Amino acid sequence: MPQTYAYEHYNVTFPQDGIAVVEINRAEALNAFTGDMIINIGKVFNQLATDSDCRVIILTGAGDKAFTAGLDIKQTSLSGSPGQKDPARKMIADMRPMLMAFQNAVTQAEKCIKPIISVMHGYSFGMAIDLTTATDIRICTSDVKLSVKEVDIGLAADVGSLSRLVKVVGSMSWVKDICCSARIFGAEEALRQGLVSAVYKDKKEAMAGAMKLAELIASKSPVAVQSTKEILNFSVDHSVEDSLRYTAAWNPGALQTADIPEAIKASLTKTKPRFAKL
Amino acid sequence: MPQTYAYEHYNVTFPQDGIAVVEINRAEALNAFTGDMIINIGKVFNQLATDSDCRVIILTGAGDKAFTAGLDIKQTSLSGSPGQKDPARKMIADMRPMLMAFQNAVTQAEKCIKPIISVMHGYSFGMAIDLTTATDIRICTSDVKLSVKEVDIGLAADVGSLSRLVKVVGSMSWVKDICCSARIFGAEEALRQGLVSAVYKDKKEAMAGAMKLAELIASKSPVAVQSTKEILNFSVDHSVEDSLRYTAAWNPGALQTADIPEAIKASLTKTKPRFAKL
Amino acid sequence: MPQTYAYEHYNVTFPQDGIAVVEINRAEALNAFTGDMIINIGKVFNQLATDSDCRVIILTGAGDKAFTAGLDIKQTSLSGSPGQKDPARKMIADMRPMLMAFQNAVTQAEKCIKPIISVMHGYSFGMAIDLTTATDIRICTSDVKLSVKEVDIGLAADVGSLSRLVKVVGSMSWVKDICCSARIFGAEEALRQGLVSAVYKDKKEAMAGAMKLAELIASKSPVAVQSTKEILNFSVDHSVEDSLRYTAAWNPGALQTADIPEAIKASLTKTKPRFAKL
Amino acid sequence: MPQTYAYEHYNVTFPQDGIAVVEINRAEALNAFTGDMIINIGKVFNQLATDSDCRVIILTGAGDKAFTAGLDIKQTSLSGSPGQKDPARKMIADMRPMLMAFQNAVTQAEKCIKPIISVMHGYSFGMAIDLTTATDIRICTSDVKLSVKEVDIGLAADVGSLSRLVKVVGSMSWVKDICCSARIFGAEEALRQGLVSAVYKDKKEAMAGAMKLAELIASKSPVAVQSTKEILNFSVDHSVEDSLRYTAAWNPGALQTADIPEAIKASLTKTKPRFAKL
Amino acid sequence: MPQTYAYEHYNVTFPQDGIAVVEINRAEALNAFTGDMIINIGKVFNQLATDSDCRVIILTGAGDKAFTAGLDIKQTSLSGSPGQKDPARKMIADMRPMLMAFQNAVTQAEKCIKPIISVMHGYSFGMAIDLTTATDIRICTSDVKLSVKEVDIGLAADVGSLSRLVKVVGSMSWVKDICCSARIFGAEEALRQGLVSAVYKDKKEAMAGAMKLAELIASKSPVAVQSTKEILNFSVDHSVEDSLRYTAAWNPGALQTADIPEAIKASLTKTKPRFAKL
Amino acid sequence: MPQTYAYEHYNVTFPQDGIAVVEINRAEALNAFTGDMIINIGKVFNQLATDSDCRVIILTGAGDKAFTAGLDIKQTSLSGSPGQKDPARKMIADMRPMLMAFQNAVTQAEKCIKPIISVMHGYSFGMAIDLTTATDIRICTSDVKLSVKEVDIGLAADVGSLSRLVKVVGSMSWVKDICCSARIFGAEEALRQGLVSAVYKDKKEAMAGAMKLAELIASKSPVAVQSTKEILNFSVDHSVEDSLRYTAAWNPGALQTADIPEAIKASLTKTKPRFAKL
Repeated sequence: MPQTYAYEHYNVTFPQDGIAVVEINRAEALNAFTGDMIINIGKVFNQLATDSDCRVIILTGAGDKAFTAGLDIKQTSLSGSPGQKDPARKMIADMRPMLMAFQNAVTQAEKCIKPIISVMHGYSFGMAIDLTTATDIRICTSDVKLSVKEVDIGLAADVGSLSRLVKVVGSMSWVKDICCSARIFGAEEALRQGLVSAVYKDKKEAMAGAMKLAELIASKSPVAVQSTKEILNFSVDHSVEDSLRYTAAWNPGALQTADIPEAIKASLTKTKPRFAKL
Repeated sequence: MPQTYAYEHYNVTFPQDGIAVVEINRAEALNAFTGDMIINIGKVFNQLATDSDCRVIILTGAGDKAFTAGLDIKQTSLSGSPGQKDPARKMIADMRPMLMAFQNAVTQAEKCIKPIISVMHGYSFGMAIDLTTATDIRICTSDVKLSVKEVDIGLAADVGSLSRLVKVVGSMSWVKDICCSARIFGAEEALRQGLVSAVYKDKKEAMAGAMKLAELIASKSPVAVQSTKEILNFSVDHSVEDSLRYTAAWNPGALQTADIPEAIKASLTKTKPRFAKL
Repeated sequence: MPQTYAYEHYNVTFPQDGIAVVEINRAEALNAFTGDMIINIGKVFNQLATDSDCRVIILTGAGDKAFTAGLDIKQTSLSGSPGQKDPARKMIADMRPMLMAFQNAVTQAEKCIKPIISVMHGYSFGMAIDLTTATDIRICTSDVKLSVKEVDIGLAADVGSLSRLVKVVGSMSWVKDICCSARIFGAEEALRQGLVSAVYKDKKEAMAGAMKLAELIASKSPVAVQSTKEILNFSVDHSVEDSLRYTAAWNPGALQTADIPEAIKASLTKTKPRFAKL
Repeated sequence: MPQTYAYEHYNVTFPQDGIAVVEINRAEALNAFTGDMIINIGKVFNQLATDSDCRVIILTGAGDKAFTAGLDIKQTSLSGSPGQKDPARKMIADMRPMLMAFQNAVTQAEKCIKPIISVMHGYSFGMAIDLTTATDIRICTSDVKLSVKEVDIGLAADVGSLSRLVKVVGSMSWVKDICCSARIFGAEEALRQGLVSAVYKDKKEAMAGAMKLAELIASKSPVAVQSTKEILNFSVDHSVEDSLRYTAAWNPGALQTADIPEAIKASLTKTKPRFAKL
Repeated sequence: MPQTYAYEHYNVTFPQDGIAVVEINRAEALNAFTGDMIINIGKVFNQLATDSDCRVIILTGAGDKAFTAGLDIKQTSLSGSPGQKDPARKMIADMRPMLMAFQNAVTQAEKCIKPIISVMHGYSFGMAIDLTTATDIRICTSDVKLSVKEVDIGLAADVGSLSRLVKVVGSMSWVKDICCSARIFGAEEALRQGLVSAVYKDKKEAMAGAMKLAELIASKSPVAVQSTKEILNFSVDHSVEDSLRYTAAWNPGALQTADIPEAIKASLTKTKPRFAKL
Repeated sequence: MPQTYAYEHYNVTFPQDGIAVVEINRAEALNAFTGDMIINIGKVFNQLATDSDCRVIILTGAGDKAFTAGLDIKQTSLSGSPGQKDPARKMIADMRPMLMAFQNAVTQAEKCIKPIISVMHGYSFGMAIDLTTATDIRICTSDVKLSVKEVDIGLAADVGSLSRLVKVVGSMSWVKDICCSARIFGAEEALRQGLVSAVYKDKKEAMAGAMKLAELIASKSPVAVQSTKEILNFSVDHSVEDSLRYTAAWNPGALQTADIPEAIKASLTKTKPRFAKL
């Protein structure tokens, strides 16, 4: 029986077998994130992680104008009022737990063992970078407006952009440029720097492109695909040696899957393999 | 007295002073790898590592069609027959030791202290990526067909591609795209993403290009070149601080070489320096 | 009261509020570095780190011909005379302390919590790469001549290039190519590989471009900018998880700044925010 | 208003200002853990982490016979029935998520920023070691029977004992002895090896000793105590250098507490300082 | 069919089902190690690692006088003759490969997935510490004479003692004392510091004690025991977080063993479980 | 020509060839540390590091009453006056640089490549632990009063105790007990827990014991001793694998010392070896 997904400000649909689309749904506010929305996006990815109907996830934003304009600064208490409380107590008891809860929510995209494709269009500021750098594949529209915006509101990005940008693109000179200046950059620059791996004319075509890639991935062995995401994520943060050792702990179990003979048989007989849910 | 290299399916030649060419030589099967071939490539690099006649290595595949089509799935037991043996025993006693032996063989390319230039042409699937990401410099022909193919046979790449791709190119979005989809990509994309650092028209020109680069490197102080490879490899997997400390352990010994005065003298007198074998 | 900067071979000026320009000033020798100059560049960055008049730093080289031609091999004792002293004593008592002192000086660019923009023109060899890879943003002129030159004088680069290049650009094939061959490459290649993030026609335009970027960064909250540099630097060398944890230690203090309400107010009222010195 | 704690099989009481006692309360089954109980202990520590009435936590087991006899093997599905399901699917979709949920629950003891004192008596097997090695201070009764019991039921301990024992005691020879043999050992051996830091005659005296230590800790600045636990936990898993850097991110905020002048004043005037809740 | 073990200077016997005894057999030279012997000890452990008849290993030295007196300085070329060869070439081409081969041989004790119990008696100098710190459990006789002897012959211990002592005992003050002074210490001190976990009157009793412990471990599920050694070894060198993640990659495969139901059934029926070879 | 050491509050003497004694010399204030004194202790160790007359260092405190009573809270500004300055600016511009300067000074004891023996007597609070845990060998008198005192003045120890205690002793339960409670403990407990490796009746005997150990170490090859300290320090913070690799970078240079043939010859001829200064 299919699971139900009821989250304010998120639509979760399954337009096709195995493919979940998560839509940030607060178009009236340019999909800006309230604190609750941040917490909930973690729950959405958590639920999809254990939903055997889901093999691949597409993340998009509702409306024509924005993937997300970032944090909704009216709805989120970024800073305590200085002077009212012992600074150390505010730091330890208020700010840090809130910050860690936000970080933890975003990290669920990384921990979700199923590949997530982010489709960015229009305003894609702040939280857009925090969130999509925790996903696996980023594509965008030609009119996207990207920015690591946090410096413009007086703070260092703290729910993931700074920790993850240095891992997902190659040029540190560029990362420091965009993070220290908060300047807006476009699709062509994002593609050239490797932040996104494809650019499409508009949102409709980008969603179609994401869907096509999702279909391709969903047609593969889910044991192979999910093992691949997990090992790649481990590898980013560990030495080659440690990653090989981790792979040698993981794969000897995973290699016992019936998907391998199924895949090989299909390959030799030029037929389409069928892989059970995972 | 020159060493001899007798390995089934590998030709090792020295077309020029200091330059070894290793040719994967099973063209009749698109240079597909059997288990024995994987073990042996490690031995080849090990022998070259201590052969003082060798300063630089070029790795290529025999024939016109392929660098390598990948693992020979008919000759390699990827998966046990499920149900026949205790899964934990199969994992610990069968699959893991085999996997670690394969990983270890490929890692010899990384451990070999002499620079290795890989020249990929035609089909360059699976093991092609595992193996060449463990080498130092990758170039290819304009018609190369590259793929992290493992997902197509139901498994996560486990002898190095996933652990090393995240270190040798910059765009994680692209790495996840090609690893989860197993799609075939070409020379232009490989160059743009930094997987290769040069593209040549065809195999003949690529080999000529590799040879020219090898000559250049072979003309330098082998103390300097080999120290450079070792320190770069260390740096990839460690913090800047640790790498500097490692360098400060390594170089104070290496700096006592006679190659430095020789190089400086040659530089000042505009002559060609001569460096002894290492 | 403004601090004074008196270092032989360095001019430190403040052409604009909050922006320091550090000029390597030994044009008569193509700005080649003596040992003393290396030690002193660390002192310059150290002093700027605690000078509250300084928010952003631009690093450039005097004259038309070179950012720096590298180490002045006539003024620096790279290698002991072999055979004169116990090799282990030379290693531990002479070479290693000197090397670590040089490394430590260059590392001050990284530790200085204010963003540093390097502007390379003309000859930019050896120390040019060591030094600028320890800074944050690299730009260059169209006629720049770049090289990791150390192999040409018989040694592995040891004051930072090898440890940092692998972190600041994406393509390892390219890094190994340039480090093992010591070949000279130009602006277009440096841009494509991400070593620099912008190329300008000549030195004048490059300095104007650097100044414009510096102004932009200097106009932001210094709490936000400096926190961003520190967290990015930490992130490069640590796992995502560790970086998030570090951020969650750092930001709960930094978020108590008055700059956030100031920035938000300015944003809502479309006025220019004013941030106190730090 | 005080929080309420309603968890089946856990009593949470506040016998004294600032001191919470968590009692594992399933004495009829020697406090053996069901799967639900494991998940819930994480929730208990999570709630206490943010309860400002709580400064120190004591963890104990109900009844005379056991802190806990370990996992309730009748209530927990340790292993799937072999042969019924694809081994890879069972591994990825069933066993791993369950295992990670258990690990995560136990880790909440470590993440809870308030010190936890474990008081072990009687049977203290399996989960007793998993759980208490994630707490901060371990004491026991003279009749305690300790064992890393997992090998006796055919598995490697996987919710923390193996990962944490190597960090909380010094002798690896002893750790391997007890983990590979699953032998039962007593209070004297646990004390000598540093697993516990105090031994008391019986449960009553051990609880009194724990309470006395808890009172002492609760009388200190909670800013100082909680910062100390967090930095110590970070230090165990990081290099000295990283730990110092983390401390230099954490303390400059924490040092702005009013507790320091309060503590110093009290020290100089020989009075008892009073520190606000955190 | 049982494997045969033919190594000069090593006797390998199976006095009991599942228990291999490796005896260093060069009593006429106080079991001092030649270079070949070091290389061979790695081969012995490698062979035992894949011998399904072997579940536990005991390592001992032949004769009454010594476990081993250390490196045989007459048979091993520790240092090149200074001045004869370029110091950098000697370092890179001669000393380092030899040293790494020795390190690698000793590390096979650690990599061998079966527990190794070392029994030290009489002179146990230098290599005795290098080798036994790479094994799992250390016991000794009351008359043992232990020393990290390398400083006495002018070098820092380099095949493992320095790298492993800091991991296998708790007191760094003691480690630095014995390593910098090369002083001889006895059984009582070794036990108190945790270097050994048991002391016996003489070699006969120590071997009996080792045999009894080996029997106990051999009677357990080999899946559980070998998983335990591997996870403990991983944990020593990684953060708790990484170790838990590694465990969650390893155990979901291992938990599918038939040994768990067998162990639980035996536990409930108070019978002796029987576990198949691994 | 011998160097001179002129530091207020430190006496540096050479009572014997190769042995430096550093005495904290502010007995009138129980050797409490001012900020300047912390900075200077780093300079003292730095100077000794490069003084070839110094092979071993003993650290002691003047007077009968105290090694050091800790930080002089009247002379050091621990906390800013809350409310007077932007908390983020105080954190980034004031507290963090001061804290890092203090940490850096203490770390010079670790970086100094010559072994340091700390002799603690009487009050040994706070800075006593910070400082001596950065040295190599700790001994004490029977009447020593030790305490990680920082919690008692409202802060977490931040110049090293928390980062280093977890590395220098084995029992984490004990470390957390003493750090969270700030309780005073004595010589017997310090010895049992491995914080010190020897206890002497009084200061005179402790100094005699330290001198004897220093003589023994000073009689060994300084190449061997200093290499040993450096490799041990590296090993504490790195994996076994990394430490072995570091050793294999370091030792091939150090093994070329003339000290090895000298030591071997002396050993064979039963004479006393003589090693040149380093």
